[in-house]
Amino acid sequence: MSQPPAALAYRVDNCTIGRTMAILGERWTLVVAREVFNGVRRFDDMRVRTAIPRQVLTDRLRLLVEHDILRRVPYQEPGQRQRFEYRLTAKGLDLYPVLVAIADWGNRYLADPEGPPIEFGHRDCGAVVHARMECDHGHTLDDPRDVLPRPGPGARRNLDAATG
Amino acid sequence: MSQPPAALAYRVDNCTIGRTMAILGERWTLVVAREVFNGVRRFDDMRVRTAIPRQVLTDRLRLLVEHDILRRVPYQEPGQRQRFEYRLTAKGLDLYPVLVAIADWGNRYLADPEGPPIEFGHRDCGAVVHARMECDHGHTLDDPRDVLPRPGPGARRNLDAATG
Repeated sequence: MSQPPAALAYRVDNCTIGRTMAILGERWTLVVAREVFNGVRRFDDMRVRTAIPRQVLTDRLRLLVEHDILRRVPYQEPGQRQRFEYRLTAKGLDLYPVLVAIADWGNRYLADPEGPPIEFGHRDCGAVVHARMECDHGHTLDDPRDVLPRPGPGARRNLDAATG
Repeated sequence: MSQPPAALAYRVDNCTIGRTMAILGERWTLVVAREVFNGVRRFDDMRVRTAIPRQVLTDRLRLLVEHDILRRVPYQEPGQRQRFEYRLTAKGLDLYPVLVAIADWGNRYLADPEGPPIEFGHRDCGAVVHARMECDHGHTLDDPRDVLPRPGPGARRNLDAATG
């Protein structure tokens, strides 16, 4: 009989990937964040661009504000009532590596032949920006097989686990 | 009146972030992928660890196989019928930077005080692995404000856009 994987001996209820995906893993949430990253900050503009149903867009924006990823900023056009636009917080801006990593993967596997409609440039030199894996010793990891998942500082033994 | 954002002049229907999130943005999909990255390959093991409802887990695994992120490999324990376990394809392994970027963000903002239960180590030197943004000229981007979204090679003008 084969050896059970070591991960079975640990609990997942404090997993930060799971917690992050509980926010970002709703169908449209990261697409809404993409709009704001891209400078599209107003409800009606997002709705026209993305065709997300009004109620869903309202819910996703509320979720992102609740989690302090977006903040609401009032604005008023001449002759109209006060409205709100959405800006990224520091916590929201820190999602940039996630967005770039997702775009890299999508561009590799899901792009139309002419390429993606958005790219990310380095503000200083203009070159295209990608997500890379790097270890704390400064090594770049180009091969995903060089990454080894292992129990972290918050790993908790699973007392129920049949660990063989 | 303020200037409308430049992004409004472009269509989003070929956006690779949107297409990627159509796969990964289902509530549990990346959590299922996390299990396989972590060596947990069998349906019953995933179910016990994650508490994902049986039908949802079945659907998510099917979605990941359909998109060639996981592949099914038959196995048979003595005295039992043949079953399947799930392994990452090359396309699935290429999601590693996405997973690491999500873990970095989650660890920063959503971890319990003792830290995350999983970490990613560099197989060669053992140091912890993070996702970094780097441009094609080799500059590391530590500040998200150094990233500038812009129309990519597949950008299509939106003929309906009110571009001011």
